[in-house]
Amino acid sequence: MNTPFLFHGQDPSWIEVTEQTLNLTLVSDADTPITAIFIRCEPDNEERLVDMERGQQMGKRQFWHGQIPLNQDKTMTHYCFKVMQNSRQWWLHAQGISPRMPSRHQHFKYNRQDHPPGWVKQQVFYQIFPDRFCNGDPTISVQDQEYCLRGDQLPVIAKQWGDAVSGHDNNEECDNRNGASEFYGGDLQGIHSKLDYLAQLGVTTLYLNPIFSAPSNHKYDTTDYLRIDPHLGTNTQFAELVADIHRRDMKIILDAVFNHTSVDHPWFDKYGRQTSTPGAYNHPGSPYRDYYQFDGATNQYIGWNGIDTLPKLNFSNPEVQNYLYAGDNAVIKTWLRPPYNIDGWRFDVIHMLGEGAGAKNNAHYVKAFREAAKSVNPDCLILGEHFFEATQWLQGDQEDAAMNYFGFAHPVRAFFAHKDIAYHNCQIDAEELIAWLDEARAQIPWQNQLAQLNQLDSHDTMRFFTLLDGDEATMQLALLMLFAYVGTPCLYYGTEVGMEGGMDPDNRRCFPWDSITQPTEKISNTFQYVRQLIELRKTRPSLQAGSLQWLHGQNNALAFSRSTEQETTLCLINNSDHAATFTLPLWQVGIEEGTLTDLLTGDEWSCKHGELSLTLAGKEGVLLSH
Amino acid sequence: MNTPFLFHGQDPSWIEVTEQTLNLTLVSDADTPITAIFIRCEPDNEERLVDMERGQQMGKRQFWHGQIPLNQDKTMTHYCFKVMQNSRQWWLHAQGISPRMPSRHQHFKYNRQDHPPGWVKQQVFYQIFPDRFCNGDPTISVQDQEYCLRGDQLPVIAKQWGDAVSGHDNNEECDNRNGASEFYGGDLQGIHSKLDYLAQLGVTTLYLNPIFSAPSNHKYDTTDYLRIDPHLGTNTQFAELVADIHRRDMKIILDAVFNHTSVDHPWFDKYGRQTSTPGAYNHPGSPYRDYYQFDGATNQYIGWNGIDTLPKLNFSNPEVQNYLYAGDNAVIKTWLRPPYNIDGWRFDVIHMLGEGAGAKNNAHYVKAFREAAKSVNPDCLILGEHFFEATQWLQGDQEDAAMNYFGFAHPVRAFFAHKDIAYHNCQIDAEELIAWLDEARAQIPWQNQLAQLNQLDSHDTMRFFTLLDGDEATMQLALLMLFAYVGTPCLYYGTEVGMEGGMDPDNRRCFPWDSITQPTEKISNTFQYVRQLIELRKTRPSLQAGSLQWLHGQNNALAFSRSTEQETTLCLINNSDHAATFTLPLWQVGIEEGTLTDLLTGDEWSCKHGELSLTLAGKEGVLLSH
Repeated sequence: MNTPFLFHGQDPSWIEVTEQTLNLTLVSDADTPITAIFIRCEPDNEERLVDMERGQQMGKRQFWHGQIPLNQDKTMTHYCFKVMQNSRQWWLHAQGISPRMPSRHQHFKYNRQDHPPGWVKQQVFYQIFPDRFCNGDPTISVQDQEYCLRGDQLPVIAKQWGDAVSGHDNNEECDNRNGASEFYGGDLQGIHSKLDYLAQLGVTTLYLNPIFSAPSNHKYDTTDYLRIDPHLGTNTQFAELVADIHRRDMKIILDAVFNHTSVDHPWFDKYGRQTSTPGAYNHPGSPYRDYYQFDGATNQYIGWNGIDTLPKLNFSNPEVQNYLYAGDNAVIKTWLRPPYNIDGWRFDVIHMLGEGAGAKNNAHYVKAFREAAKSVNPDCLILGEHFFEATQWLQGDQEDAAMNYFGFAHPVRAFFAHKDIAYHNCQIDAEELIAWLDEARAQIPWQNQLAQLNQLDSHDTMRFFTLLDGDEATMQLALLMLFAYVGTPCLYYGTEVGMEGGMDPDNRRCFPWDSITQPTEKISNTFQYVRQLIELRKTRPSLQAGSLQWLHGQNNALAFSRSTEQETTLCLINNSDHAATFTLPLWQVGIEEGTLTDLLTGDEWSCKHGELSLTLAGKEGVLLSH
Repeated sequence: MNTPFLFHGQDPSWIEVTEQTLNLTLVSDADTPITAIFIRCEPDNEERLVDMERGQQMGKRQFWHGQIPLNQDKTMTHYCFKVMQNSRQWWLHAQGISPRMPSRHQHFKYNRQDHPPGWVKQQVFYQIFPDRFCNGDPTISVQDQEYCLRGDQLPVIAKQWGDAVSGHDNNEECDNRNGASEFYGGDLQGIHSKLDYLAQLGVTTLYLNPIFSAPSNHKYDTTDYLRIDPHLGTNTQFAELVADIHRRDMKIILDAVFNHTSVDHPWFDKYGRQTSTPGAYNHPGSPYRDYYQFDGATNQYIGWNGIDTLPKLNFSNPEVQNYLYAGDNAVIKTWLRPPYNIDGWRFDVIHMLGEGAGAKNNAHYVKAFREAAKSVNPDCLILGEHFFEATQWLQGDQEDAAMNYFGFAHPVRAFFAHKDIAYHNCQIDAEELIAWLDEARAQIPWQNQLAQLNQLDSHDTMRFFTLLDGDEATMQLALLMLFAYVGTPCLYYGTEVGMEGGMDPDNRRCFPWDSITQPTEKISNTFQYVRQLIELRKTRPSLQAGSLQWLHGQNNALAFSRSTEQETTLCLINNSDHAATFTLPLWQVGIEEGTLTDLLTGDEWSCKHGELSLTLAGKEGVLLSH
């Protein structure tokens, strides 16, 4: 006997929340004999099976309804469905359908508090590496040899806009000796001057790599958490930038690098540049000594990931706590308040910070960051950077969302580019892709799934287009996935003009503004394609918040729907080089007869008797609306 | 390309623990080209990939070795293996092998502290329902109508040994009106008088259902936590019983019912039987009022699972805490100390207790129970009752082990009896059985896996033999599984003489002592079979603590090995009615050539070129030694 069709979505068409209960709806195939369906829940950790009532039959779909109590002992309510036939049973859970009871981590999860801000899922994010986006004020650009990194070892280099970055040739071992010390002059005024461009592209939230004072070009080595780096602009300019962004109904988040500081931070002052208060490195009696983790009175200290230019902060020190998040004027709070009013924080390597040398008591500090930030602006975004699985930070009480490497970038790069995050070969088919995506999503509540920041690439990975060896057709499929899948899409700057780039630092090339004014056909096509996807994402609530239903997944082809009560969008992707025919059971998403329109081309397709049959060319992908 | 052979066990042959590191060994098929193997670990939550070194080749097995740091930020170290081929990668983790990275819950887990006591895995437990095991002292037996339950509503009934219990006919709706009020006179002296019998059978640890003062026969309704129920014996008799048990190198654990009390407990005193201090029910001003959860000044209170005869204790009350676990003379501590010296506690519905009305802050109290108990006897067992998944209580810091319904009884009953725990039909094949068992085990550390209390049935379920409609052959297969699988076996009293019994209370029939003195052939066979299995379990370290390796799993047939460095035991089970041929790749467990001996019959089998071929009859199971 084959697995029956059963579906339960997590948008409001399927879940009605009252003060004390969850009212749940499930749909089955009306032709499949089912003797009973129970909702399994665990109030006070004890199993309760609640009988569902048979509801309406609509087309081939049989609806079922039931009500469970919201858990009172904890904020999360988890549940799944037990479906009885005469001789066997099936369980519908967040990872799919099984012939036996699933583990708790596979249950559907509803969190009655700590929802991410509602605005997040409506955004299209755009990540900017400030030194490389646009030079708006050459008078503040870093001058050649203006200063040195690592004491006097590494003089800074000023380069011409568009010149190759160090280690640009990704066919060789990447030479990134100068990766952190070469500057192109991008700044806040440059970003400000391009807001019209960004509005035209359609993105709505800017996510900037660090902009606080720091000697390197990447600025993950902070020397002053309360001051914009003078080579990027002033605090006043930043306030004006945010004000203009908000006037345009756009938003902005900043990168919070709290795990470690620069060795040049006055607290640490490795090279004895400060004259006022003695820094921790050279002075065991320094008032900042316990801001870091030293081995007794020696000058051995803990650097982040063993990197000695980035000394790790010790969060067990109440002064560190107060300065960064707990005090009235803490860093986290200051930038969320006027005159800056940023809309959220992206926390760098947030899983690694904690007490002493490592991540001890990490959860406590992440919760404290959240509380501090929400105390100033309850509607701000708490976004964590996690290169790998972030499940434990995404149960509501810690982060709103993560940089979704684990649940999006990794599986998507494996499917389209056949590489894992370490650039090792990795072969998965559509079935495995779906299992992987489902496994990652299943473990976190739906509201957090919608807020997850999905990216194809970032300042920390090879550009996706380069990973694909410049294969435009596959890039378009991956972009389609980015904009149609569950979670909030984020473009890394320049993706819209097909920017290339190998591993860090080659992935941080200068934005080619010439290509905007005089685009090649290829660039023009890419830009229009991305702009169309952004527009669709912004205007279709189903793509922002609709339930996900898989309709096909085999070999290199997959199809799914995103549906709200009002709207359905279908996404079909043929990642094979050859044509592929899809026969999709659209009755499962409530479409029996009618016309489907290709949202990108306007072509029309007919659904008959609940089925849609269509053939996609090799490497073709479509978005259909009903 | 097929999934390659890869194996990593968790007994000391595969894991060497030093102060700071885990030294790990893995084995692959020497004929499978592998370019590299990495151990994936996450010190301070950040991924680290550690290269493994190619070690010896032994037969067709290629060994690999690598070393990872023990996590410092937490007590648990989790890891898995990334196996590189030219074009693809494989991940070996606690649930098996995947073509992509598994979630964290699937990683292998090593806990550097909080190991269960080492003695647990060496035991064969025997669960006794005291009223039904043996009447050693008729002078203390409950007399007909001696007292009443539920005020004056339910007079107790004295029944003749062996008479049918209420609701004994499991073909009808169970009539258990008198389930709690009928008594057969079993007592401590009866148990004491049967220690020779139990020693002859071979069991080593007794687990008694509750024996503290309580009006019902099941005694889950405590009226005095510090006194043995007078119808079962005296505190002195109990101390003598334990002393004799210990003299025989046996052990004993008791049932701790701390979630709720009887309505007749003096603290509650629903029926106004106490004359000294006013009880909580009738006196809103009672000093015990806050021991329970009342709705204001009304007499509405919270009963366990809505059962109003079992008022739920409120653990947020420091007096409840002190009385049960925190105080110097707390209940938990008293029975672990002389003159009683019990060896551990089985905690009833431990997942449900907490503050106020429900399970709020449950983990805090379970940890506190553990600390209280281990403070008196660090080597005592903390065993939790969980009818469903217990993963969250089994990460080391809470329970040593759970009544393993979720990870053993449920899957095993589905496979052999085609029923789930709610007696609904459930069909799984051997492949699904293995996936289910692996999924449950994967989520907890190996040491806790070994201590899990595996049972086929208990006082809360239909007897397994009855569930099988008396099918002896299948019962033998299930028993084989119980004694060969990972975890500590526990027999429910009388299983060794084929006792039958439907749902509660029919599963609590009187032990048929006549059948021991004058056994039928069937009973004699069952007894000998169980005794043999017990003996093998006690004398074969591989069954107690050996790594588990699946060798076959298809349709109704399965085979696995349990191996230590010194010893391998193979278990083969054919659950089909028809003969089945097994071809087992014994080279994977290091057996290339040689003779295997059937541990139950003495028959011998040859392994040639690393393979063992043998045909089992329908419903045959064997244990082989090498």
